[in-house]
Amino acid sequence: MTDTDVSAVFDRAPFIRLLGFRLVGSGPGWVETDLMLEPDHLQQHGYVHAGVITTMADHTSGAAASTVIDEGHSILTAQFAISLLRPARGAALHCRGEVVKPGRSLVVTQSDVHCDGVHVARFQGTMAVVEGGLDG
Amino acid sequence: MTDTDVSAVFDRAPFIRLLGFRLVGSGPGWVETDLMLEPDHLQQHGYVHAGVITTMADHTSGAAASTVIDEGHSILTAQFAISLLRPARGAALHCRGEVVKPGRSLVVTQSDVHCDGVHVARFQGTMAVVEGGLDG
Amino acid sequence: MTDTDVSAVFDRAPFIRLLGFRLVGSGPGWVETDLMLEPDHLQQHGYVHAGVITTMADHTSGAAASTVIDEGHSILTAQFAISLLRPARGAALHCRGEVVKPGRSLVVTQSDVHCDGVHVARFQGTMAVVEGGLDG
Amino acid sequence: MTDTDVSAVFDRAPFIRLLGFRLVGSGPGWVETDLMLEPDHLQQHGYVHAGVITTMADHTSGAAASTVIDEGHSILTAQFAISLLRPARGAALHCRGEVVKPGRSLVVTQSDVHCDGVHVARFQGTMAVVEGGLDG
Repeated sequence: MTDTDVSAVFDRAPFIRLLGFRLVGSGPGWVETDLMLEPDHLQQHGYVHAGVITTMADHTSGAAASTVIDEGHSILTAQFAISLLRPARGAALHCRGEVVKPGRSLVVTQSDVHCDGVHVARFQGTMAVVEGGLDG
Repeated sequence: MTDTDVSAVFDRAPFIRLLGFRLVGSGPGWVETDLMLEPDHLQQHGYVHAGVITTMADHTSGAAASTVIDEGHSILTAQFAISLLRPARGAALHCRGEVVKPGRSLVVTQSDVHCDGVHVARFQGTMAVVEGGLDG
Repeated sequence: MTDTDVSAVFDRAPFIRLLGFRLVGSGPGWVETDLMLEPDHLQQHGYVHAGVITTMADHTSGAAASTVIDEGHSILTAQFAISLLRPARGAALHCRGEVVKPGRSLVVTQSDVHCDGVHVARFQGTMAVVEGGLDG
Repeated sequence: MTDTDVSAVFDRAPFIRLLGFRLVGSGPGWVETDLMLEPDHLQQHGYVHAGVITTMADHTSGAAASTVIDEGHSILTAQFAISLLRPARGAALHCRGEVVKPGRSLVVTQSDVHCDGVHVARFQGTMAVVEGGLDG
């Protein structure tokens, strides 16, 4: 998959644009993203909502998985587990997603999310490779 | 925890209001929610983003856990696993979160998410009980 | 898959025979097993080892998945999550594994393990369907 | 926790002795173990049973967690997720368990299992810190 394709995984996903995630780097088997935190990202105690952290970890892992599959295929999340290590509060989130094990039908990934440099979540995902690219 | 407290878990969470989740029912050990789907909830293939489904499953499970803890305590998600059973596309999501095992320091929960009546996700969570309520 | 095939999943697995798990019932989409507890099944505090409970939950779920796939295929565990709800101590374990979502390449399952009637674990698994039956 | 305590986590667990796991090294926040494979460790296709790999990953992570807690406490597994990356076949398993995040009531860990040098499983666990050591 080309760099353009990785960008498309972000540009063409309305929910990702709504939340404000940005692609900041990618290569074979990895993607990095960030997010400037806004009040809309918080839960009822003033921490970043687990859903924001999880969406970032999942989407970044999915994008990382998309760097190791053949043209004409794309990635759907089948299953994941996430540990929320600490409540997150700060100015920005950063996430790195990596491929742990590539595969023809399943790609196993890991994402780590940091908030202002503090490790706040580890994600382990099973991504399904499906036929059909973003254009069909 | 009172019904008012369960409502507060929704009303005071900006991220939940941004996405549009509504509390539709609750009792001891369970909570139900729904979401009218909008274009902003989608990912790059036109399906509901896994982050939307996961946020719903997590928040509903957390609210269900909050119904079985003592006053002056609240819930933070420690860890969860989710299986995304099928791509979700439709008009509305519905979620039921239930307590599988209450506890003094950890509450284990399950959430199931349906899209227009089709089962799209099962979530299994470990929720941490922390001191301090929503006002303190 | 026939009843004979489900039995083979137990009879031909040396690790399952070593531990002593017994198939006690099965039908389309479900399998039940039990285990008479012995001192060898315990961990350092005198509870049943998490590995015994997990092996039972995984193997029973895998057998349940094998009831919903085509002839000439078999099941390998791709991923699972398990919540150990309480320390287990008693005379016997019982497990029921069920298919949550069948599929051509992935089958999602759940297992629940009870010890002397007390719910001790819930398991959520993603099982891969692979070509080749038990005879090749 | 002392090195003697880490040894006790292995020596006093009958299920671990039955399977043959050996402690091969430990330090603050990590433990390494190995297992010489025997026919009894296999499943119905001749691969190492997922239950063997999972028991190793769980027990090694639990032992790693026990290196970062106070005297008079011990570790029980609350929840974990594991990805089985490839079918495992070979002469020996090796496992390294590490603490991802220490804590007063929960310790998050990761274990990686290799079979003859090939990465076969990644485990992510949530371990509960309980009062009472191995001698009560």
